[in-house]
Amino acid sequence: MKVLVLNCGSSSLKYQLINMENEEVMAKGVYERIGQNNSFITHKVNGEKYVIEKVAPTHEEAVSVMIEQLTNSQYGVVKSLDEVNAIGHRVVHGGEKFSQSVVITDEVIKGIEECSDLAPVHNPGALTGIRACQKLMPGKPMVAVFDTAFHQTISEERFLYPIPYHYYRDYKIRKYGFHGTSHSYVSKRVAELENKPIEELRTIVCHLGQGASLCAVQGGKSVDTSMGLTPLGGIIMCARSGDLDPSIVTFLMKKENISSDEMDRILNKESGIYGISGVSPDVRDIEKEANQGNKRAELSLKAYDLNIAQFIAKYAVSMGGVDNIVFTAGVGENQFNRRKGICDNLEFLGVKIDDDKNQLKGEEVEISAADSKIRVWVIPTNEELVIARDTMNLTNR
Amino acid sequence: MKVLVLNCGSSSLKYQLINMENEEVMAKGVYERIGQNNSFITHKVNGEKYVIEKVAPTHEEAVSVMIEQLTNSQYGVVKSLDEVNAIGHRVVHGGEKFSQSVVITDEVIKGIEECSDLAPVHNPGALTGIRACQKLMPGKPMVAVFDTAFHQTISEERFLYPIPYHYYRDYKIRKYGFHGTSHSYVSKRVAELENKPIEELRTIVCHLGQGASLCAVQGGKSVDTSMGLTPLGGIIMCARSGDLDPSIVTFLMKKENISSDEMDRILNKESGIYGISGVSPDVRDIEKEANQGNKRAELSLKAYDLNIAQFIAKYAVSMGGVDNIVFTAGVGENQFNRRKGICDNLEFLGVKIDDDKNQLKGEEVEISAADSKIRVWVIPTNEELVIARDTMNLTNR
Repeated sequence: MKVLVLNCGSSSLKYQLINMENEEVMAKGVYERIGQNNSFITHKVNGEKYVIEKVAPTHEEAVSVMIEQLTNSQYGVVKSLDEVNAIGHRVVHGGEKFSQSVVITDEVIKGIEECSDLAPVHNPGALTGIRACQKLMPGKPMVAVFDTAFHQTISEERFLYPIPYHYYRDYKIRKYGFHGTSHSYVSKRVAELENKPIEELRTIVCHLGQGASLCAVQGGKSVDTSMGLTPLGGIIMCARSGDLDPSIVTFLMKKENISSDEMDRILNKESGIYGISGVSPDVRDIEKEANQGNKRAELSLKAYDLNIAQFIAKYAVSMGGVDNIVFTAGVGENQFNRRKGICDNLEFLGVKIDDDKNQLKGEEVEISAADSKIRVWVIPTNEELVIARDTMNLTNR
Repeated sequence: MKVLVLNCGSSSLKYQLINMENEEVMAKGVYERIGQNNSFITHKVNGEKYVIEKVAPTHEEAVSVMIEQLTNSQYGVVKSLDEVNAIGHRVVHGGEKFSQSVVITDEVIKGIEECSDLAPVHNPGALTGIRACQKLMPGKPMVAVFDTAFHQTISEERFLYPIPYHYYRDYKIRKYGFHGTSHSYVSKRVAELENKPIEELRTIVCHLGQGASLCAVQGGKSVDTSMGLTPLGGIIMCARSGDLDPSIVTFLMKKENISSDEMDRILNKESGIYGISGVSPDVRDIEKEANQGNKRAELSLKAYDLNIAQFIAKYAVSMGGVDNIVFTAGVGENQFNRRKGICDNLEFLGVKIDDDKNQLKGEEVEISAADSKIRVWVIPTNEELVIARDTMNLTNR
C-alpha cells in the first residue's frame, strides 16, 4: 500500500509518498509561495533534488504539478495515480469535534470548516488541499489527521481556562494543544525503545522546533500539554512568546494603539528568544552570538532553558512524577547545548546527562547517565509517518 | 516609638497605629468609599468597633477623620499627633527605581508618580494619602514601602519577558512581582521558627489571598515570583486569571469587540476560580458549593490546587530544590482543604501533610508530617508590621 501525505499551509504544500510495506519515503517535496508569482516546487527522490519554478495560482495547480513529479517518466516513483491507495491530510485544528483521525466525508469537511474560527490561518489551508485532491484524484480515499486530536484526553480541570466559563460554552475557548501526532509518535517510540508497556510510563515529550510544545503522556494518553487555544501559548519559543501575564497584551495595545491582529503578529513573529536577543528566530544564530559574548543572546538562552525545565517540572506534577523525558524536533534533536541547559536545571529531580552521548544529533539515543533517576532520550519525530499509518489503518479495510 | 501605617487605595484608606516598643497594634481601621456620598470609617480599638458614617469627599477628609479617631477623648489611643513619630505608606509599584523602602522626599514623590503608568489604579491612591498627610501632619517623617521592592533582586533572565526587547527599554515592561512585604516577612519568620540562618534556606512562600502570588526566596532574597508586570499575572487567583495563552486576549477582544480596559476588567474581576465556577470570588463559597456537588465549583478548585502545585515545582527548579513551603494570607492561612489539595499534588517531591496539624487556622504552625522531605508551614502574614519596622529603621536616627 502507498499513502500520500499532504500538509497544506495557506501558501504552501508539503508532501511525502510513503510505501507502507517498509514505511519508506519514496519521494517528498514542498511547493512554496502558492498564490504568488514566484512559486516553485522542490521535489526530492533517491537523493536527488529537483527545483521547478512554476507559478501555482492556487493549491489545485500545486497539487497538479506535484502529481506530475510523482508520475514523471524520468524520475517518477509511480506509473500512475492508481498506485497511490490513499491520501492523508494534516489538519491543524480539530476542535472538540475530532478526538481521532477520520475518513474525510462531506460532514468531516464541514466540521473542519467549523473549526476554522480557532485556526483561521491553518484550517483553510488544509481545506484547499483537500478540495484540490477531491477534484484531481476523485474517489481516492482520504483521511484527516489532527494536531489537536491526541490531546482530547486531557481532563476538564486542565483544559478550562480561568476566565468566565461562558467563553468556553459560547466560543469553545479552552486549551487544545498541538503537535499531537509528534507527541503520540515519540511517546510510543520511547516505550518501544525501553521495551516497557506504554501503560506503565509517564513521559514528558519536549517537541522543540520553531513552534514548540511539551506534552505529559501518562499510560499512552496526553494528560497535559503546553500549547493552548492556539499554538502561541505555553513555553518560550523561537519567535513566539508562550504564556504571558495577559496585562502585557492590553498594556501594549493601549500604549502603542495597536490592533489585535498586529499584537498577534508581534507575539507570534517577533517574540520568544528572538524578542529577547534581537538576533534571529533561529536558535543556531542565537547560540553563535551568545558564544561571541552577546549578553542578550545569552540571557535569552538562559530564559529558554529555565522556562522549559520549569514546564517539565509542571508536568511532573501533573503525573505525580516522570519516568522519561524525550527531546524531539529541530532544536530538540540537534541543539545539544539546549538539552544540556534544560537538564542541568533539573538536577534536583535526579536528572543527569551523559555529556558524550548528548553530543549526538538527530539520532535515536538515550542521553541520560546510567545513574540518572529519570531517563532522557532524543527521538527524531516523524509526523508524516503517523499520518500515513492512520490513513492506512482507516482506509485499508 | 509609635508608627502610623497607611494603605491608601483609590477610594479607601486602611490604617494601623503600632507601638514599636512591643510591636502591638494600638488601633486600626478602614475608611471605605472615599469620594462617594456613602463613605464611612470602621475604627477598632481594645476589641471595640466604632462605625462612623461621614462623607469623605477626598483622602484629606478621610485622614482628618482618622486623626479624630486616634486622638478622640473617649477612646483615642494618643493624646495628640505629637505622640506619632512617623508614618509608613504602602506603595504598590516602585518600578525599577525603588529596590528598598525610602524616606519620602519631593524626589521620591516624583518617582512614585513616574511609576503610576505601571499601576494606574494603585499608585495615585497612595500619592493622595501621602499628600493628605503632608498637609494635615506637616513635617512628620514619612516612609514609602513598596510591594515590588523585595523582588528587585530577581535576575534579568527571569524578569525579562519573551517579547521584543525594546518594550522593556521604552516602557519598562518586565516582571516586577508584588506582595513583597509579605514574602519578605514570611520568609524571615520561617527561618526564625526553624532556627536556621536564612542564608541557607530555599523557601517558597504561597501568599494566597484574593490577590495571590508565589515567591522563591533563596538565602533571604527573592529569586523568582509569579506576579508580573501587574498583579494580574502568575497563578490562578480568586477572580484573576493569572498567566494565559495571550491569544485568548486578542481572540476575545476581536470576537466581542471589547476594549483593552474592558478586557482588563474581565480578567481582573470575573476570572480565576470565580470565572470557572461561576459561584463567587470567595473560596469559602466555592468550597461550600463543591461540597454540595456543584461540578464546576469542584473543577475550579482542582484547577487551583494543581496550578499552585505546578508553580511550586517551577520555583523548586528556580532554586535547584526547596527546603520549605509556607502558606500565608486569607486563603493560605485558613482554607486547609486548599493546602491539602495543593500539597497532595506534590507527593512525588516528598511533601507530606500532617492532617491533624493542617486543621489549624490562622496560627503559626508546621503542618508537614515528621517524614516529609520538605517542611510545610502556615505563617500568618503581617505586612503592616514590615512597613512599621522599615519606617522606624529609616526615621529613628
